[in-house]
Amino acid sequence: MIGHEIKAIENGGVCTPAGFMAAGVKAGLKASGNPDLAVLLCTRPAPFAAAFTQNAFAAAPVHYSRRLAAEVDTIRACVINAGNANCCTGRQGVTDAGNMAGEVADCLGLSPDEVLVFSTGRIGVMLPMDKVTEGIRMACEVLSVDGGEAAANAIMTTDTVPKSLAVEIHIDGVPIHVGGMAKGVGMIDPNLAPVERGKHATMLAFITTDAKLAPGLLDTTLAGSLDHSFNRVTVDGDTSTNDSFIAMASNLADIPAIRPGTVEAELFQRAFDHVAGELAKWLVKDGEGATRFVELRVTGARTPEDAKRCAKTIANSLLCKTAWFGADPNYGRILDAAGYSGVTIEPTEVSLYFEGEPVVRGGAPVDRPEEELAQAVDVKELHIDLDLGLGDCEFTCWTCDLSYEYVKINAEYHT
Amino acid sequence: MIGHEIKAIENGGVCTPAGFMAAGVKAGLKASGNPDLAVLLCTRPAPFAAAFTQNAFAAAPVHYSRRLAAEVDTIRACVINAGNANCCTGRQGVTDAGNMAGEVADCLGLSPDEVLVFSTGRIGVMLPMDKVTEGIRMACEVLSVDGGEAAANAIMTTDTVPKSLAVEIHIDGVPIHVGGMAKGVGMIDPNLAPVERGKHATMLAFITTDAKLAPGLLDTTLAGSLDHSFNRVTVDGDTSTNDSFIAMASNLADIPAIRPGTVEAELFQRAFDHVAGELAKWLVKDGEGATRFVELRVTGARTPEDAKRCAKTIANSLLCKTAWFGADPNYGRILDAAGYSGVTIEPTEVSLYFEGEPVVRGGAPVDRPEEELAQAVDVKELHIDLDLGLGDCEFTCWTCDLSYEYVKINAEYHT
Repeated sequence: MIGHEIKAIENGGVCTPAGFMAAGVKAGLKASGNPDLAVLLCTRPAPFAAAFTQNAFAAAPVHYSRRLAAEVDTIRACVINAGNANCCTGRQGVTDAGNMAGEVADCLGLSPDEVLVFSTGRIGVMLPMDKVTEGIRMACEVLSVDGGEAAANAIMTTDTVPKSLAVEIHIDGVPIHVGGMAKGVGMIDPNLAPVERGKHATMLAFITTDAKLAPGLLDTTLAGSLDHSFNRVTVDGDTSTNDSFIAMASNLADIPAIRPGTVEAELFQRAFDHVAGELAKWLVKDGEGATRFVELRVTGARTPEDAKRCAKTIANSLLCKTAWFGADPNYGRILDAAGYSGVTIEPTEVSLYFEGEPVVRGGAPVDRPEEELAQAVDVKELHIDLDLGLGDCEFTCWTCDLSYEYVKINAEYHT
Repeated sequence: MIGHEIKAIENGGVCTPAGFMAAGVKAGLKASGNPDLAVLLCTRPAPFAAAFTQNAFAAAPVHYSRRLAAEVDTIRACVINAGNANCCTGRQGVTDAGNMAGEVADCLGLSPDEVLVFSTGRIGVMLPMDKVTEGIRMACEVLSVDGGEAAANAIMTTDTVPKSLAVEIHIDGVPIHVGGMAKGVGMIDPNLAPVERGKHATMLAFITTDAKLAPGLLDTTLAGSLDHSFNRVTVDGDTSTNDSFIAMASNLADIPAIRPGTVEAELFQRAFDHVAGELAKWLVKDGEGATRFVELRVTGARTPEDAKRCAKTIANSLLCKTAWFGADPNYGRILDAAGYSGVTIEPTEVSLYFEGEPVVRGGAPVDRPEEELAQAVDVKELHIDLDLGLGDCEFTCWTCDLSYEYVKINAEYHT
């Protein structure tokens, strides 16, 4: 995926691109006492692109930020709290989201409409605004170009590790950076729709860049990345009320603005896709209780919608997920899930592969010893290919198994 | 539910109605060595009604029986094996299903097109026809009016108890019986379509009656019962390749044939619905690893489809199911699932009730102590009502929680 043109930056993150500062502090919103409030700042007005959950119970900060994102061309900052989703909190919730933006603006000398707001955590509880306000003040005081890791740490909920990375590409000999951070390892089946400019995951993801971009390019780049990143992951099939994905550009690189349809735009898209894709995969690998990562590719579908629906149905099947946990090469469960997904299927045209080796051909099992199949699926990263044999549409899903630990985490954790 | 007009029969089952015999034997298909083959016989040609899975990978016996059911008006017998689903077994599978019918016909002096065939168990393995044939011969030799419990026992897979019941009603002073048996506590989210006569769950369900019925009445009765019984249950959201539901009438009661639109037909429907509904509930209560039964009612939906889709999405949400396991009154997960179900929702119109007491009103939480809510959901049978507040359509779902045991059963069991 990452070629000679795209280089990873060690310990990279949202502050790797020039023009970005971040901070993560303890506001006291998490029962654990861990950091729970982050601020990301661009030193100049940043063109941005955004995509938000399509859940009907979208949280107050989603309503607030989606509306703002549709009205403005540039922003300066993002404020993010964990520990409380500010969802199902009525009008007060929206007021609180606005007050978070207002507090950041006050602290940093910005206008409130230059600040987007994000929350993740428990649903149905009012934000303790005194703690949030104090947290924002602390964060704004310690903003730094070294703050990327602290920010990535503060936005975590059930994540076991903070997730940051950055890459470098060269355009006209000038180094250009794309950095990112993300959180969210449960209630993960994002279905993000880009905000229509002049226009709309609890995964939260932030990508920054210092590339100089022609107007609108960041929007098309983000929209183009969704089906190759966050919209192809699922941990548990539960699409959150708070999923959000934001990209910001500082435009600081000393190059001519990258225009759509150029080789430079294509390289930038690949760098962006790499960062978004790696963050998305990381969410799944750190998926609640996950012991195995599964890349599931459905090919030969009649339509793109069929390919996606079939892949998501298998990826979210409890019986497939528990079989993967048990290293059970139970292809019957995969075919069963494909069969009830509602997509066009001709059983005799269907082939299935584990790790590139055939398991089912023409709808019937290939004659291979059970032990061999069991060995094939007993890997940390399992590759499954299902060829429906009907067309040329495909979709790749990144998912994980379902373990005792997932049940434990979610029977005990108050979202 | 069961009123003074409908009386339960102690130890009732498929042989309670006059004219039915059954048997269950050990054919050696289950690794456990438990009984695994059953035959149900009507002593005379029986009008019947049938509904089968709509899974694209429908098993060979489903293909076989669905086709036969569309062509004939009466049947005499059903043969059912557990331990092997005869699914993804190609042409040989269909031939094997036909040979099962042929063997029953040979043993009992019937025509093969008077015998329906059903299988449940592992997918993708050829039936060991020598064992199946020998099992059929043994079962046909021990058919008896006392064989209902043995048959219910032989069709089990991961079920912990056999499921049989029967009720009695009176029409024109004559006692009329409706009996039934069912199996299937995993891969349970039936989506059954009636066979269209002249006419389609691995749940298997069989209902018998000695009522004398006007032609076609059994079809409309079965079709009318689906959304009040098997199509409203879900254990894990996985719709099986083998789900089947059959009703047979011996017509032996000495009454005028029950005609559509009469009070007698309405009473018969209620008795039928009771048996089908109780069997369906029982499947969920015995659901793999289930520790809690949940009755989830969605009301106020704009359309019947919205009501059903919303209820099924919540019932199949991993986060809702694990919260129920943990007795966590996490209404946020319920609203979240409703929100991504894709149905029309106005958050401010939504109300939610646990055990009849309000939890959410107008989209915002009711002020009740957390301990009170936790107590409300810590019951063996939980009643949840979600009122979308938009229309007058509703749907009730019966489901269960998701426990460590479910993961254990399905990480270790080969379906």
